[in-house]
Amino acid sequence: MKRILSLLMLICGTALGQGLADSRPATSNVMGAQYPRIHADLRATFRLKAPDAQKVQVDVGGAKYEMTKDAEGYWTATSAPLVPGFHYYFLIIDGVTVSDPASETYFGYGKQASGIEVPEAGVDFYQPKNVPHGEVRERWYQSKITGAWRRCLVYTPPGYDTQTKLRYPVLYLQHGAGENERGWNNQGRVSFILDNLLAEGKAKPMLIVMDHGYATKPGEGAAAPAPRPAGQFASTTFEEVIINELIPLIDATYRTLPDREQRAMAGLSMGGMQTIQITLRNLDKFAYIGGFSGAAGGMSNAPFDPKTAYGGAFSDAAAFNKKVRLLWLGVGTKESERIYTSLKTFHETLEKAGIKHIYYESPGTAHEWQTWRRSLAEFAPRLFNH
Amino acid sequence: MKRILSLLMLICGTALGQGLADSRPATSNVMGAQYPRIHADLRATFRLKAPDAQKVQVDVGGAKYEMTKDAEGYWTATSAPLVPGFHYYFLIIDGVTVSDPASETYFGYGKQASGIEVPEAGVDFYQPKNVPHGEVRERWYQSKITGAWRRCLVYTPPGYDTQTKLRYPVLYLQHGAGENERGWNNQGRVSFILDNLLAEGKAKPMLIVMDHGYATKPGEGAAAPAPRPAGQFASTTFEEVIINELIPLIDATYRTLPDREQRAMAGLSMGGMQTIQITLRNLDKFAYIGGFSGAAGGMSNAPFDPKTAYGGAFSDAAAFNKKVRLLWLGVGTKESERIYTSLKTFHETLEKAGIKHIYYESPGTAHEWQTWRRSLAEFAPRLFNH
Repeated sequence: MKRILSLLMLICGTALGQGLADSRPATSNVMGAQYPRIHADLRATFRLKAPDAQKVQVDVGGAKYEMTKDAEGYWTATSAPLVPGFHYYFLIIDGVTVSDPASETYFGYGKQASGIEVPEAGVDFYQPKNVPHGEVRERWYQSKITGAWRRCLVYTPPGYDTQTKLRYPVLYLQHGAGENERGWNNQGRVSFILDNLLAEGKAKPMLIVMDHGYATKPGEGAAAPAPRPAGQFASTTFEEVIINELIPLIDATYRTLPDREQRAMAGLSMGGMQTIQITLRNLDKFAYIGGFSGAAGGMSNAPFDPKTAYGGAFSDAAAFNKKVRLLWLGVGTKESERIYTSLKTFHETLEKAGIKHIYYESPGTAHEWQTWRRSLAEFAPRLFNH
Repeated sequence: MKRILSLLMLICGTALGQGLADSRPATSNVMGAQYPRIHADLRATFRLKAPDAQKVQVDVGGAKYEMTKDAEGYWTATSAPLVPGFHYYFLIIDGVTVSDPASETYFGYGKQASGIEVPEAGVDFYQPKNVPHGEVRERWYQSKITGAWRRCLVYTPPGYDTQTKLRYPVLYLQHGAGENERGWNNQGRVSFILDNLLAEGKAKPMLIVMDHGYATKPGEGAAAPAPRPAGQFASTTFEEVIINELIPLIDATYRTLPDREQRAMAGLSMGGMQTIQITLRNLDKFAYIGGFSGAAGGMSNAPFDPKTAYGGAFSDAAAFNKKVRLLWLGVGTKESERIYTSLKTFHETLEKAGIKHIYYESPGTAHEWQTWRRSLAEFAPRLFNH
């Protein structure tokens, strides 16, 4: 066996060449896949066997790279250094955008996309560690509002099963457009982030409920939220599901503290917009609010009048500040100008209006999961402290 | 909105043509995807936009179909009627086998594969129904044996959280080669099968633990079990993990009945072979045994001597029959000759040797999940009845 391994290493060493000596398979690959590989300088090398293809590209980190074919039909390309964190990526084979068979899949862009995990030096807050681990539970429920089966995922903290007298606060945590209820677990690593915060005593034990962020009534057109003027609300079917079906289900099924002071909602991008809409219209249900890279209506970066926008939720700053325990906004500094300014405008408008809130910028990250992992790690410790 | 919908229906109606009027999108598609579509006669039509591709095929149900391109660059093909159940499938674009972007992905063949769910008329034992639902919980654990993090999924039955004095028997249930711990939940629909059996009073409430069926020690070569002579055991690393790490973890974490009389193991294909090996070598730990389309060593269909094979586990029929509460074997009648005869030979050899067991044939199904869903639905009611 040792001889075979040595031989394999020799073959691989030759095939990999000097340029790959500093690289290792991405942790986001399927088991055993040697590509994509991440280099020490965070470039990534992709490879696909496609002897009969005419043209193959890889689309990663906001750029498309032409892949080149060797004599055996393997196409390879090496990217520029990638920003640390999780990136969706695609292969484009003779013009068709597909997932890389070597990658695990991660639901994004409305399909099962490839993803590449680029490590951040010295950062492990979203890695599994030798600490007590909670669970992520899959729960199906039948929605009368939509007439369909829905799935939510529920993070329960370590000790939930043994400390059966304890009741817990709940964070409702939503994914972005084109993603689904699996995003925070698979891409976001919510369970490891919380396990680690809890082990360090930095967060209160809580449940985290991640629902499917789409809801349409029978006959209603399925649609992602369309851009709309700042300060306006979108259609309310998802809100109806959350308020009238999901929260009652969770409070009936788990040992929750079924009270607004023990209930938070947050979300990323579309989920942030949904959060703002749902919480501002239901402040009797939520005391903690988080918008990660999404908060203002339809991602608009237009100014709005806090006296009248969002149904007047911000019209009385003193009342709002008394009622809402936390309004938290976060954005990555490398997000698109429109999204960055939409969060910043929201923040500045609230500040001028005297609405207490926290504004966080994730250094060097874009509209991607590293921004949202960091946001969660900043947001969660501030929950349920009153 | 209604006008837009009508217009869309008109356009789609035209594009679909008469031949698709009897079809509907497969339930295994990603949300909103109109293809693949299943026809009333169980043919399936696949579609992909690929204007620049030279050749596109779809590989489904054991056959490859050439797809044909229309003026707009859409490639389509319609299969022969498919056997009911779940089938992995692939698109082949200019020679490269990839997943269909329109399909959810299901881990099989060592990668995230496309899958198509073909309904079986009048059969709903694996569909979600309006009955109490259990949960499937994701649990990570650090293996000292492999030096790696592992994930298992744990089905807990309805009532587990509320009936906190009750303790439960445990079924360890394994996937096949190229699949992983998600298979029984995603492809197999284990939670719906158990929820439905429990609602009908046909099974005992139990936990079901689905582990990652691969384990290698640091430095040990990663390999699927190689074919080996009937009656011989394979390498034992996975067995060590199950016996020395997983069972103790599960018994320490959940309210189990930690006793051989309350512990079962079953698996499909490779998982069936692992089950036979692990249970026969550890009859002090297991009283119930199930092999679904996999039981004999390395799927060999060679006869074996029950006096000496499998470490002599079958050498004393009376002792075996007293000790083992259930030995259950299942196979699909449309499986490959080699697999079908391997199960049948195993069954006949045991019968001649006086080893009590149950042998089940799933009518008309191949080495696929419909065989294993049926097997589980036949097997689970026979568990923990002593």
